[in-house]
Amino acid sequence: MNEKAKAKSMANAQIQLNAGRRSFLKNSVLVGGAAAIGAISATPASASGEDVILQKQDWRTDLGDGVGTRPYGTPSSHEAHVIRRNVEWLTADPVSSVSFTPLHELDGIITPNGVCFERHHGGIAEIDPAAHRLMIHGLVDTPLVFTLEDLKRFPRENRVHFLECAANSGMEWRGAQLNGVQFTHGMIHNVMYTGVKLRDVLNEAGIKPTAKWLLVEGGDASAMTRSIPMEKALDDCLIAFKMNGEALRPEQGYPMRLVVPGWEGNMWIKWLRRIEVGDMPWQQREETSKYTDLMPDGRARRFTWQMDVKSVITSPSPQAPVLHGKGRLVISGLAWSGAGKVSRVDVSIDGGRNWQPARIDGPSFTRSVHRFYLDIDWNGEPLYLQSRAIDEENNVQPTKDALRAVRGVNSIYHNNGIQTWYVAKDGVTENVEVS
Amino acid sequence: MNEKAKAKSMANAQIQLNAGRRSFLKNSVLVGGAAAIGAISATPASASGEDVILQKQDWRTDLGDGVGTRPYGTPSSHEAHVIRRNVEWLTADPVSSVSFTPLHELDGIITPNGVCFERHHGGIAEIDPAAHRLMIHGLVDTPLVFTLEDLKRFPRENRVHFLECAANSGMEWRGAQLNGVQFTHGMIHNVMYTGVKLRDVLNEAGIKPTAKWLLVEGGDASAMTRSIPMEKALDDCLIAFKMNGEALRPEQGYPMRLVVPGWEGNMWIKWLRRIEVGDMPWQQREETSKYTDLMPDGRARRFTWQMDVKSVITSPSPQAPVLHGKGRLVISGLAWSGAGKVSRVDVSIDGGRNWQPARIDGPSFTRSVHRFYLDIDWNGEPLYLQSRAIDEENNVQPTKDALRAVRGVNSIYHNNGIQTWYVAKDGVTENVEVS
Repeated sequence: MNEKAKAKSMANAQIQLNAGRRSFLKNSVLVGGAAAIGAISATPASASGEDVILQKQDWRTDLGDGVGTRPYGTPSSHEAHVIRRNVEWLTADPVSSVSFTPLHELDGIITPNGVCFERHHGGIAEIDPAAHRLMIHGLVDTPLVFTLEDLKRFPRENRVHFLECAANSGMEWRGAQLNGVQFTHGMIHNVMYTGVKLRDVLNEAGIKPTAKWLLVEGGDASAMTRSIPMEKALDDCLIAFKMNGEALRPEQGYPMRLVVPGWEGNMWIKWLRRIEVGDMPWQQREETSKYTDLMPDGRARRFTWQMDVKSVITSPSPQAPVLHGKGRLVISGLAWSGAGKVSRVDVSIDGGRNWQPARIDGPSFTRSVHRFYLDIDWNGEPLYLQSRAIDEENNVQPTKDALRAVRGVNSIYHNNGIQTWYVAKDGVTENVEVS
Repeated sequence: MNEKAKAKSMANAQIQLNAGRRSFLKNSVLVGGAAAIGAISATPASASGEDVILQKQDWRTDLGDGVGTRPYGTPSSHEAHVIRRNVEWLTADPVSSVSFTPLHELDGIITPNGVCFERHHGGIAEIDPAAHRLMIHGLVDTPLVFTLEDLKRFPRENRVHFLECAANSGMEWRGAQLNGVQFTHGMIHNVMYTGVKLRDVLNEAGIKPTAKWLLVEGGDASAMTRSIPMEKALDDCLIAFKMNGEALRPEQGYPMRLVVPGWEGNMWIKWLRRIEVGDMPWQQREETSKYTDLMPDGRARRFTWQMDVKSVITSPSPQAPVLHGKGRLVISGLAWSGAGKVSRVDVSIDGGRNWQPARIDGPSFTRSVHRFYLDIDWNGEPLYLQSRAIDEENNVQPTKDALRAVRGVNSIYHNNGIQTWYVAKDGVTENVEVS
């Protein structure tokens, strides 16, 4: 396997409308896969001269860079293709746009801070943390203004949660559109937050008995604002100042953001500057004309805060084709639910006719992504790969068609339909639909 | 609180021998702290004109950078002091030296990849992953050579483990030496690894009945080699290729390293290139003249692989002084054990006379760091802060003096003694000892 060829293939796998999009009848699917696991295609050392190659590895003959060369480290130059990608034609201007997490290149459940997807409505606010303030006012006993250092004096909590944009997979409503899991599902990341309970901060100001809602406002140029019901605010919301151990990144709300576990990413206000306590929702732009779901009968669902149970296979996928031919194949993916933990993931290699349970590996946290694997022995015939998540409330991820039957195709948000990847004999993988 | 002043204070907190090192009699300690928790010193909004300040925040008036500006993100410029630091006088050359994790600036249990400490013996091997090979030979049925892509076809596991250098806190054997937790305890990091079981890879080659030990060799210029007993290799070791979701960093062994949970960092061979299977340990330099512990009677402990139960308060600490005066104070730290999970952490604010249980928050994984907190109401009097970890095998972290009574002061490695920080009335914090 040639790593350069792979990198080139990745670079070429830039987003494209799936022009030759194919639709397959479920009954015509030819399936690969078998029960037993074959040998790994390692080379016998004695027969290959590989031990000579081992002696020649030229990085062994010279001293490398010492400590202090990179006080804050960066990835290997061979990983330069593992980056967030944005799509120029998707939005009018990059200040109100999105970049996508390279899910196909990641493993485990932690998203490294450098590649967490972005969604901005007025660009990245570049904030001096010493000058930043958070004000709490409205239906409170004492309006208060907090510095970052004030906030850090409350008891802290550490929690791993996914943040998914409500529009993630939004272009899939009208059919298989985008040829790469980075673009179909890359508006999600999963990190460990350190912060303080929103409840504790609200209690410091004192909530009046009539208080039922919060308006939360960001310190960016768009002044992003959302209404949040008091029950959620008092339940599990955090004001976070760290992600994966270090300070929040500027594009993730430095120096402080709201964490609203399991609910759509738009509500996780970045650069948090103001919390107003009130008795009714504010009906802001982002909860009326946006982030509502237009149904076939012309009515709109609103306040659809909780993200649904969902999963996707991250490898193989269009940007991560099978390069090693038949034999052992690791099928890997992510599953998550806004309702809690994922209890089970099933994988199909024949477009949904037959299912087998995947192995969930690594930590299982509530409202966090879960990593799953299915290890198969690929016979080299085409595969129609699907995954289906089930959460601890027994919510089952639906097919795209089942979802369309209820919601129509006018929606942008909350598409949690089952994704299909077609793996050809040569390992090339495409976004398709089976019906 | 002025963030610039803080950054300057951090920069000045460069490592120094603790020249005015103080020693205190335990009985003379004056203690601060109280049971009840006071109010946070937030400013009432109405009385302060702070709402006017809020209007003026200048990042609100201009559009910020859009998506795509940083395809691989970096921290805020205001966090430029959160870096690995090395100490020029500590070693003869940076290619065989160490840089330290900035523990005083981190929270939670995940160490971001950019600041994971480094220990190199021949500099950083810069490896082309497509050309890298791992050979397994010796007492096996079939010697094999694996590419990185071959290895990725085994079933994968995800686990969070600490990696601690055996020499961490080594300068503390002879008294309080280094004025900063980054330097006293910063040779540790804690990340989520994705890899394959060493057991599976060995079984692919077939282990002969006489096989009892492995020699594991790195692909760097020092050809780092250690002997590992077969029991450990078959138990919980991984060959990892990802850390915190993305590829290993070059300084952490890209493209593959050994993970030896709970055992000293030197054995976690980076840039792994060769595993030889044998029937006796190899008695390499790094397990004879180095990484052995010279006792008072002239004999040396050897094969002291497992890291002992240990903890340290990361904030307040000399590089993270108390800047906010009396009132609510968050005491925060890390605890870990090579024997398994940490079951309890106690904190003393009076140099070990009285102890109270700390709150362990966030995930508890075996052979991973645990984050603990104690929230106190500081009365402004001096504090002598200590933490004491107890693991699930009921191993108790000893005092430095108890350790010296058994091991003397000739050792470099395996110092897990209780650390004391002295917090003065003005919040300035120092590395001291109480006796």
